[in-house]
Amino acid sequence: MSGKRYGSIHNVLYYECEKTHRMTLSMLLNVLIQVSGEQSVKLGLSDEKMAELGYAWIVLQHSFSVKRMPRANETIHVETQATQYNKFFCYRNFYVKDDNGEELVNFTMVFAILDMEKRKMIRIPAEVVEPYGAPFEKGLLRVPRPVELNEEDAGSSTYNVRYFDIDANNHVNNSKYIEWMLDSLGADFLTEHELKSGNIKFEKELLYGQHVTSLASVSEKTDNIQTAHRIQTADCVHCTASFEWKGN
Amino acid sequence: MSGKRYGSIHNVLYYECEKTHRMTLSMLLNVLIQVSGEQSVKLGLSDEKMAELGYAWIVLQHSFSVKRMPRANETIHVETQATQYNKFFCYRNFYVKDDNGEELVNFTMVFAILDMEKRKMIRIPAEVVEPYGAPFEKGLLRVPRPVELNEEDAGSSTYNVRYFDIDANNHVNNSKYIEWMLDSLGADFLTEHELKSGNIKFEKELLYGQHVTSLASVSEKTDNIQTAHRIQTADCVHCTASFEWKGN
Repeated sequence: MSGKRYGSIHNVLYYECEKTHRMTLSMLLNVLIQVSGEQSVKLGLSDEKMAELGYAWIVLQHSFSVKRMPRANETIHVETQATQYNKFFCYRNFYVKDDNGEELVNFTMVFAILDMEKRKMIRIPAEVVEPYGAPFEKGLLRVPRPVELNEEDAGSSTYNVRYFDIDANNHVNNSKYIEWMLDSLGADFLTEHELKSGNIKFEKELLYGQHVTSLASVSEKTDNIQTAHRIQTADCVHCTASFEWKGN
Repeated sequence: MSGKRYGSIHNVLYYECEKTHRMTLSMLLNVLIQVSGEQSVKLGLSDEKMAELGYAWIVLQHSFSVKRMPRANETIHVETQATQYNKFFCYRNFYVKDDNGEELVNFTMVFAILDMEKRKMIRIPAEVVEPYGAPFEKGLLRVPRPVELNEEDAGSSTYNVRYFDIDANNHVNNSKYIEWMLDSLGADFLTEHELKSGNIKFEKELLYGQHVTSLASVSEKTDNIQTAHRIQTADCVHCTASFEWKGN
């Protein structure tokens, strides 16, 4: 048994795409979060309603698999569904399909609830999950973890948190971590490879004015290429990730 | 007499807004360019068709005035119309209205045609402007120029051109210059002030891997605040701009 399904249509615009005309991963993520936000509004749990209750959703992890990234000017169909929850975590799937119903991308995301005043994760209040119709399951759902960075072979780039990186939660938007992680692979790598799958785990929020280092290591497997990533500040790991790629 | 009008509707999404829930100037610009691109497709002059002919549109200047920036979850109506052209320049207006027909923002943009092979501006070919229906007018249209930067009082920030700053024309997208110019004003200024008008003049393209300096000076006038900006590399000015602001 799973929760209620919600679907929405999105036209992929030119500025959501990289120079190869493929939609960027960070823009695709923004669209998915927008669609789950639309479902929340429909169920009476808009971000404003959550803020009144003193809560905010935070994303802890993305695990995804790509058959083909959406392209500029394509219409995509995004479906989402809460699948289950436990004491601290909520799980939600997303399915992105093309106009013929072919699945292009699927995501599993792990969410938690932040108490806005204490800025701390809290036990999931029943009132904010029940409307989505997904069952309570005592155990944790097994979501694969990112592959470890190969520290010795890792390259690094540095980034400053900018004003436009900050979202309505007053911290760096998740999509920005992804831009820093991918940018550090360089233009040649990014134009010559396509994403096959990935796993991104958010560890700690980042605030305006912080300076981050984006570390990345690349390893060749028999049938694909794997990259591993870490976003860190002087004393803290803020995000880890790994991606699998195929050559163009 | 002016050219054919074309209109489109856009729902302002949360990730197109800054933390104040106002749409960002760079995202608004992306939407305007998208809408004029839709008109071009309708008239048989898509970017692909232009590329076949060996041409690309480039934006030389934006001059705009803001009554109120669009807000998250608002539906906006964007209308655009080519107004006139001369030997080298095409002029186009944009009108952004809310659901009640109130004008929120208007833009005048100056475009030119790039010969893709020579990467040089060329005399406007009649075949790529006639479908828009705007008249040829021999003289230049007077578009105000940005106010000069006050070099002595200017603050500066530096930025590296990243992979995701590059668009399908293989150079930095115009919207990125704007993010660099505004970011250099700092979060306090940006949350405490609202844009009233602006003028942005693009001088020279920027390529992947370049390092830019964003200079900004602030001056208080009797009824508003003015900022002046310059994006430069070691040996070249790439963009100048000025904005007028009011306090929140």
